Amino acid sequence: MNSKIAALLMSEKIDLPIMGSPKYQYVTSTHSGLTYYFSGKTAQVNGVIETQGILGNDLSVAQGIESARICAINLLAQIEKDLGLENVNQILKVTGFVASSSTFFDQPTVINAASELFVKILGDSGKHARSAIGVAALPGNSPVEIELILESKELG
Amino acid sequence: MNSKIAALLMSEKIDLPIMGSPKYQYVTSTHSGLTYYFSGKTAQVNGVIETQGILGNDLSVAQGIESARICAINLLAQIEKDLGLENVNQILKVTGFVASSSTFFDQPTVINAASELFVKILGDSGKHARSAIGVAALPGNSPVEIELILESKELG
Amino acid sequence: MNSKIAALLMSEKIDLPIMGSPKYQYVTSTHSGLTYYFSGKTAQVNGVIETQGILGNDLSVAQGIESARICAINLLAQIEKDLGLENVNQILKVTGFVASSSTFFDQPTVINAASELFVKILGDSGKHARSAIGVAALPGNSPVEIELILESKELG
Repeated sequence: MNSKIAALLMSEKIDLPIMGSPKYQYVTSTHSGLTYYFSGKTAQVNGVIETQGILGNDLSVAQGIESARICAINLLAQIEKDLGLENVNQILKVTGFVASSSTFFDQPTVINAASELFVKILGDSGKHARSAIGVAALPGNSPVEIELILESKELG
Repeated sequence: MNSKIAALLMSEKIDLPIMGSPKYQYVTSTHSGLTYYFSGKTAQVNGVIETQGILGNDLSVAQGIESARICAINLLAQIEKDLGLENVNQILKVTGFVASSSTFFDQPTVINAASELFVKILGDSGKHARSAIGVAALPGNSPVEIELILESKELG
Repeated sequence: MNSKIAALLMSEKIDLPIMGSPKYQYVTSTHSGLTYYFSGKTAQVNGVIETQGILGNDLSVAQGIESARICAINLLAQIEKDLGLENVNQILKVTGFVASSSTFFDQPTVINAASELFVKILGDSGKHARSAIGVAALPGNSPVEIELILESKELG
């Protein structure tokens, strides 16, 4: 990555994690031309989802926000690995799934933590269309799962 | 918009609302080449979701249908603002999320109200692939949220 | 389809079903250039969803796996009808929705049955980015619904 992105990550106290390989039959990203599709990321840290649960049942909005930020960090790390953060031309679409009870309606505040981070690190290239959806449950009891589509710069 | 689309909107008694700016860190749409990604729209009217609730709990199918139609109107208004309805070549994909209890299984009838409207206003250009999904809860207790991807005409 | 794909389907004891037309106002797939968007498929067999229910409530993981495989077979049949399986260059993205209670967290194992089948039949062209999401309920009480985006080969 370039020095500007490295400095922005440092200012956010983010040390991008090393991303392993999926345990199931899928890949971390695919692309068609300049359009890259990234698999959904949960709030795993070192292979463990420390904060598990459902917003509106057992988790606070603050815990949801922290989980969304972890998902976003995992996506940034995967983008760096798969094409390089400096090669992102535009994040096109973010879909944020929040494990929610039937009485929790503040998915936008939770997912916004990811959106804010993308824009802090990537600037205008991080601005994206978005949907925030409250779902019944997520893999490994993660409170949040986030996927995205992006456009790369012309490579090579 | 052109006069044909204006007449079709009038025949449906639709006065497209003025769309404001998102309150969170995202944009209403992005595009890569001719492919436009639109953020999910809830059933807000003048900034208020009048009918709130969960299908199968507190809302009827008819209320769901009306909510889906509002989401679709909001999307049409946003398309008009962001690129112009007459510049839609094809709606490629509609994803419709319906806030549902664990015993409500008629998401297609709800989302179909949006699909019907897209085709009424845009003709063959409004025909789309679709998924209809029952979710736990949606932002602001909206019964429905709809997002879409479209292909624009070549814009000079 | 070519003889290699036909042999692989036979080795999996799969006889692709005849796909009918949607009963609602949507189409089975759309495309923009080489990018094809396929509508979500439920676990229907001959128009009937034999195994209905919610994972974590009334269905086992094994039943979810079988349902995901049926969804994948329906998608393969639709791909064959709409562009031909031999014309798939790459499955780009699979989104798998699993009807889940708030205590079922193994969506990846369920959706993996679809992922495995795509790779068995299409080889490297079947490898895809993926999200697995637990939702409240699905059309017709289907335990699983799967949608996908793919890139076709250049079609003369």
